[in-house]
Amino acid sequence: MTCPLCTTDGGLVVARASQFRVVRVVEGDEARRFPAFYRLIWATHVAEFSDLSVADRRVCMDAVTEIERVVRSLLSPTKVNLASLGNVVPHLHWHVVARFEGDSHFPAPIWAAAQREAVPALACPLSDVDAALAQRLASAMRTAD
Amino acid sequence: MTCPLCTTDGGLVVARASQFRVVRVVEGDEARRFPAFYRLIWATHVAEFSDLSVADRRVCMDAVTEIERVVRSLLSPTKVNLASLGNVVPHLHWHVVARFEGDSHFPAPIWAAAQREAVPALACPLSDVDAALAQRLASAMRTAD
Repeated sequence: MTCPLCTTDGGLVVARASQFRVVRVVEGDEARRFPAFYRLIWATHVAEFSDLSVADRRVCMDAVTEIERVVRSLLSPTKVNLASLGNVVPHLHWHVVARFEGDSHFPAPIWAAAQREAVPALACPLSDVDAALAQRLASAMRTAD
Repeated sequence: MTCPLCTTDGGLVVARASQFRVVRVVEGDEARRFPAFYRLIWATHVAEFSDLSVADRRVCMDAVTEIERVVRSLLSPTKVNLASLGNVVPHLHWHVVARFEGDSHFPAPIWAAAQREAVPALACPLSDVDAALAQRLASAMRTAD
């Protein structure tokens, strides 16, 4: 079986490091309902978070934290949701999703049934968030060297 | 508003450290369908993972990793699901859920609609997993000192 995260980017790439890439989900209902939906996708094919070395786990969660910080700072979401599931595609990836009171599923998880039709208004264009993410992650990786 | 994770344990406590506790979900459909469902609940009331200091983030994810390792080692789940959502209870807590092919929701997230009625058979009693978790976390915390 070919792993889709080994063979495709899995979204719009906003930042790329040697150990991972960060993409924004840009297709389908998910992208429409949750416009600030990012994924950190680990570069090598490992299934579980605990398959990473301690150093790689830190790199991974430091980057997830940077994504969360940029999203919070620019969009002031009601809550940020983090998840590493991988039941369908067991290649380590972290979902980072800005949630807003009144979004289609709030306060339920994005994987539950929709509670209403709604698309959140964002405080700035997503291209600004993408750019800030790229810059912050590049800077964080330089600091980590 | 009173935070339920500030005023109650939020499950069966299997390990307790100064910075967090680990509980097993023992009530309701979730506990029946996903018997190996643990939560790491941060002791202080913070909403987002990025509210923690870098040192606390490491303590937190090292413990989440230990939970995942114990669950993998004793139960050999098809996949482990990790998530920090907190839309309803914005007090930092990590879900660590052992998933099995053929469980009620697999491969969908546990928050999606059930696909079948099924309760996974476990390779050992949950009390053994609880005990191993308590031991591993105590040992990991001694090492971290």
